[in-house]
Amino acid sequence: MATISDISIAASINILSAFAFFVAFAVLRIQPINDRVYFPKWYLKGLRSNLLQSGAFVHKFVNLDFQSYLRFLNWMPAAIQMPEPELIDHAGLDSAVYLRIYLTGLKIFAPIAIIAFTVMVPVNWTNSTLEDSNLTYSNIDKLSISNIPLGSKRFWTHIVMAYVFTFWTCYVLKREYETITSMRLHFIASEHRRPDQFTVLVRNVPPDPDESVSELVEHFFMVNHPDYYLTHQVVYNANKLSELVKERKNKQNWLDYYQLKYSRNQSKRPLTKTGFLGFWGKTVDAIDFYTSEIDRLSKEISDERLKIDNNAKYIMPAAFVSFKTRWGAAVCAQTQQSRNPTLWLTEWASEPRDVYWNNLAIPYVSLTIRRLIVAVAFFFLTFFFMIPIAFVQSLANIEGIEKALPFLKPIIEKKVIKSFIQGFLPGIALKIFLIFLPSILMLMSKFEGFSSISALERRSATRYYIFQFINVFLGSIITGTAFQQLNNFIHQSPNEIPKTIGVSIPMKATFFITYIMVDGWAGVAGEILRLRPLIIYHLKNFFLVKTETDREEAMDPGSLGFNTGEPQIQLYFLLGLVYAVVSPILLPFIIIFFGLAYVVYRHQIMNVYNQEYESAAAFWPDVHGRIIIALIVSQLLLLGLLSTKEASQSTPMLITLPILTICFDRYCKGRYEPAFVRYPLQQAMMKDILDHTKEPNIDLEVYLRSAYVHPVLKAGDDYESNLASEDDHMEPALVPTKRHSQMTTLLPSKHSGSSQYLIV
Amino acid sequence: MATISDISIAASINILSAFAFFVAFAVLRIQPINDRVYFPKWYLKGLRSNLLQSGAFVHKFVNLDFQSYLRFLNWMPAAIQMPEPELIDHAGLDSAVYLRIYLTGLKIFAPIAIIAFTVMVPVNWTNSTLEDSNLTYSNIDKLSISNIPLGSKRFWTHIVMAYVFTFWTCYVLKREYETITSMRLHFIASEHRRPDQFTVLVRNVPPDPDESVSELVEHFFMVNHPDYYLTHQVVYNANKLSELVKERKNKQNWLDYYQLKYSRNQSKRPLTKTGFLGFWGKTVDAIDFYTSEIDRLSKEISDERLKIDNNAKYIMPAAFVSFKTRWGAAVCAQTQQSRNPTLWLTEWASEPRDVYWNNLAIPYVSLTIRRLIVAVAFFFLTFFFMIPIAFVQSLANIEGIEKALPFLKPIIEKKVIKSFIQGFLPGIALKIFLIFLPSILMLMSKFEGFSSISALERRSATRYYIFQFINVFLGSIITGTAFQQLNNFIHQSPNEIPKTIGVSIPMKATFFITYIMVDGWAGVAGEILRLRPLIIYHLKNFFLVKTETDREEAMDPGSLGFNTGEPQIQLYFLLGLVYAVVSPILLPFIIIFFGLAYVVYRHQIMNVYNQEYESAAAFWPDVHGRIIIALIVSQLLLLGLLSTKEASQSTPMLITLPILTICFDRYCKGRYEPAFVRYPLQQAMMKDILDHTKEPNIDLEVYLRSAYVHPVLKAGDDYESNLASEDDHMEPALVPTKRHSQMTTLLPSKHSGSSQYLIV
Repeated sequence: MATISDISIAASINILSAFAFFVAFAVLRIQPINDRVYFPKWYLKGLRSNLLQSGAFVHKFVNLDFQSYLRFLNWMPAAIQMPEPELIDHAGLDSAVYLRIYLTGLKIFAPIAIIAFTVMVPVNWTNSTLEDSNLTYSNIDKLSISNIPLGSKRFWTHIVMAYVFTFWTCYVLKREYETITSMRLHFIASEHRRPDQFTVLVRNVPPDPDESVSELVEHFFMVNHPDYYLTHQVVYNANKLSELVKERKNKQNWLDYYQLKYSRNQSKRPLTKTGFLGFWGKTVDAIDFYTSEIDRLSKEISDERLKIDNNAKYIMPAAFVSFKTRWGAAVCAQTQQSRNPTLWLTEWASEPRDVYWNNLAIPYVSLTIRRLIVAVAFFFLTFFFMIPIAFVQSLANIEGIEKALPFLKPIIEKKVIKSFIQGFLPGIALKIFLIFLPSILMLMSKFEGFSSISALERRSATRYYIFQFINVFLGSIITGTAFQQLNNFIHQSPNEIPKTIGVSIPMKATFFITYIMVDGWAGVAGEILRLRPLIIYHLKNFFLVKTETDREEAMDPGSLGFNTGEPQIQLYFLLGLVYAVVSPILLPFIIIFFGLAYVVYRHQIMNVYNQEYESAAAFWPDVHGRIIIALIVSQLLLLGLLSTKEASQSTPMLITLPILTICFDRYCKGRYEPAFVRYPLQQAMMKDILDHTKEPNIDLEVYLRSAYVHPVLKAGDDYESNLASEDDHMEPALVPTKRHSQMTTLLPSKHSGSSQYLIV
Repeated sequence: MATISDISIAASINILSAFAFFVAFAVLRIQPINDRVYFPKWYLKGLRSNLLQSGAFVHKFVNLDFQSYLRFLNWMPAAIQMPEPELIDHAGLDSAVYLRIYLTGLKIFAPIAIIAFTVMVPVNWTNSTLEDSNLTYSNIDKLSISNIPLGSKRFWTHIVMAYVFTFWTCYVLKREYETITSMRLHFIASEHRRPDQFTVLVRNVPPDPDESVSELVEHFFMVNHPDYYLTHQVVYNANKLSELVKERKNKQNWLDYYQLKYSRNQSKRPLTKTGFLGFWGKTVDAIDFYTSEIDRLSKEISDERLKIDNNAKYIMPAAFVSFKTRWGAAVCAQTQQSRNPTLWLTEWASEPRDVYWNNLAIPYVSLTIRRLIVAVAFFFLTFFFMIPIAFVQSLANIEGIEKALPFLKPIIEKKVIKSFIQGFLPGIALKIFLIFLPSILMLMSKFEGFSSISALERRSATRYYIFQFINVFLGSIITGTAFQQLNNFIHQSPNEIPKTIGVSIPMKATFFITYIMVDGWAGVAGEILRLRPLIIYHLKNFFLVKTETDREEAMDPGSLGFNTGEPQIQLYFLLGLVYAVVSPILLPFIIIFFGLAYVVYRHQIMNVYNQEYESAAAFWPDVHGRIIIALIVSQLLLLGLLSTKEASQSTPMLITLPILTICFDRYCKGRYEPAFVRYPLQQAMMKDILDHTKEPNIDLEVYLRSAYVHPVLKAGDDYESNLASEDDHMEPALVPTKRHSQMTTLLPSKHSGSSQYLIV
């Protein structure tokens, strides 16, 4: 049992480390040499050009304006200043809505915390159950529900509070859903013409012995959408081609590296070995070797490109079909085309950059089977992931290493190193697994066959949430592996389960407080420092960068990472809602997390992240649904907890609560969710008419013809232009912000008119 | 424990009673006076005219052709003869597909029974577990799984059989789904022009201060479907009007009755009392009283009709919107219209006669709440229905009756009557409840707000199935009320439940055999006798019938009653699948039920039932889904049973089975279900083009303008024509069958060319 002083010590340590991160960030950030690490977004948008070109030599690398060091927390208000509509213009709706998740957290938990501390804490505190018992307890426990005697009438406070909290949460959720729905519709309506508004992805085009896929698609839509069909673009299987292009780029990097090395030290031609990573094989002249390799790959690439153009086998049974009007596309995307509902499947085309090309040709039956396989695999991953890790742990002990690599023996036998290895090794297998988990989940989603990156990320997020719920939340409350829990739960009656978990909840409050501080506070503060991109950027800059384009590429702005970020936030929603009634002491820690994360991520979104796609907040139904799940879990656990407190007369009251919550969820699903999966004809028609009046003579066919060409095919044969055009493609449209400069730095900026939020 | 001889006695009793029903039916059927009871369908189709007009007086009432008595089972082959396409023409697709449920039963269980008797019965029989034990057992139990010793290797036979049966059932289900899907699509494609193909029901039209509903609808669809919108029909709230019309019809019946009475005995004017049912109140001249009442009602009706025409409050926020092409309607029905997904909800209009007019104006929020209320009410109905019945039973004892109605005391005290009441009363409350249950469930569905009669029936069927599953199937296996079971199950671990039920299953085989014979065999045989319609028809014929129209109305052909019939069939599927592996002795009884029911219902559909609507087999996904559920239940119960037999090494094999079944179900859902809920554009377009070439000049607007007017509003002011037109409206389209007469009866028939299947 941690006492309040334990908690305060832990809190101060974490606050200090977070503070240290912030200071480090503040110092590193204002060094010109790091500018591309901390402000890549502005470079990508072309609003900030190379800083290394002008000024004194020293000024290029180190900031000597000491005043700016004093204002080291200035980025915080700057991050909050940019109004939301401008943020949407600047970074897209996805990012703006993502930030609203944190805001939702604040909106839900701030009032709940106030009520909990004014109403429930006094009710809990003014008992003496813990004092009278022989249990060891801390003052923190006196604030929790554990301090209420069995069968006390005071439990009614908690029940009423459960209702109040539920209604408040639902109210906030409903308002958020409403706002975000209208934001999404407004965003889609106010957007400029985009190819995906006119385009539908058709999958499972049936094979035809007489016609090619392209002819078949054309004829089918000519007949069935005669007034609206415009053009189409078949999908080529360019997976091999894009691999070749990737390999050439890699070789090109090595060539650059050796050329740079040679130019710095011209006395000796650099050498390399032909084998794996240059470790094995014949020694050759590096520059010659890589030049010839690149030539070879270039030839292969143009061969492959020829094959794709001429061989029908490279055409997949899928196509992007474009229509003359948004109305026509909306109709086609929402209706069934063929008598056989597994053929001619239509869905809205994602944005061109959101398309996941590799999955476009999976047939319908295969999808069912893939889904089954992934479901089974995920089940085993969730409940049995400890088994291989335990196996690795049992291998990776000192004796094992000494046997496998006897030459390391003298080093390992040293006492310091030995104890370090013994303490470190068991954890490292688990840590590595957890680092790779999101990638594993992403692989699963890819295997499952989703056709857009946003859908892949959403599905991965769902799985990651389930994994965290079972292994972090339940795993921390009930000790034992997930599999042991599963086994217990199967052998328990269903109404025992909430009891078992509910009873353990108050005891785990201090554990979760620490968890929030380490994972939440310090994690968020670490995020802003961007240690990994910082190091990699400087390495690349030193070894590879020759041209401006190279430098552009060396930046790694990253993106929001919905598949890892959102499940983490959801864990805090879960903790907050579960502990709101049981141990309100947890709430302030969660509120600080949400506040801090909001500021940090807002800053990052404004200055760093480069969104890979724009799904117009398509993820909100998932976010909403998971908060509802957290709410229901909290209600069931409270029910379980109270039923052990001899307060069973409260059961009917508490059973009603999840039922009402489910009804609320169904209402929201019907009322708001369609806006995220369908496209209302009214809106399509309005936009069509508007477009038609504004630009009656635009040639849409030209505009749409090559919008959905595979990125590798779009590029010409020359690989330099290839790389450049690929960049073009990924680059978001230029949206200069509207404010005037209040730049407080001496550094020049090409478009300084838009850098108000770049307070350095 | 029933022995084989017990079963044979029960079987012979039931076979005899079924046989008696058939003989009675055979005799009653060929009496001309009953012709309208046993062949109403032919009258309604106009293929058979009044038999009472010609021939000798005696011949009008009694059949004196004794040869025809000898061929009394001739109806059976006749019932089977009509080929399916002709049956679809004659009685609609719904009826034809309904019969296929019985055929599916035969297809599933006949091969299963053969395999079970050749493979499993020998395996079970050649053990001596029961002989060695001290339990009482019968030879029937020796055929079941109970005879296998604990932990025997022979259980592998049962596991393999479970796989074989599952695969066979799935194979049959898949083929049936495929056939019925193509039947449905073919039926829709080959149908003549029907208003519902061009019409979409729009609900939740938003209120507008400036425009009437009609204007609003017109403007909205003019703008958003400019090329396809044709016309629309607003929905009037004519609930009060139709009640008035109903009341007038009732009064008219009484008037007819008294006029007939007076015409038979002109010496005395008939008298009646003005109060409830003519029991209380002032005594008046009956003919004068009812004439004035009818005049009053006629006036009220025309007043109400005027109000409906002129008062905007009678217009509901819903409309039937018709389009120029099927394509346009298909598009509108499948897409979202408005930004707010709870407004302008569109769905396919049902057939005009399938529309449930009262529910057309329920707003969206109310629907969610209604659904919740009904779900809770159904939960209580299912699990607690015994409580009020037990209460009624406790009141309705001898002492209670004697206290309430002391003057009955001398009669009740007689020994015979007393024991009769004591034996009869407790059961009667339950029996009455069970008779009214389908109506209660139908009321629930109506309250829930479905807008078509077919949807109401489907939902009621689902609820009835759940009720039967819990109270008949589980209730018979585990004694105790449903609530006690629920309580047990909540306090048991989830993997105990299949064990508890599984263990009891083999012991209940003989009970279910008796149940199948009484409820199945005798019930089906009773259905063909139509005792209730027979009595009511003759009563009406004697007291009310004056004109041909009256006689037409006195017929009560009834209809299939999907909401009661289908759940009953499903119970047999459940029993068959559950007992296939455990006690195959049940299978022959189920096969006989399916065969008998198939013949009987085919006969009834051909000769009696008058379908109220045509949903083009929209119910098949429900039927399929419930057989899948039965399959999964059988697999889980086998798992539970085997886990008590020390055959736990089989668990992984058996867990795989339901997972595979669920995957199969999901595959079928994706592959076939869309054909039942959506309308492919390809088909709509084909039909449109065909129509356009055939009849390029048809004026669709005239055709569609009044298709969706409320039936009471369609009629003129004159109430005679009103009644007649209502009939018109209910009458199905005339589809004469194509064969030539082989009529073996002396009775004349107007269109004898189509009466081949009327073998008398």
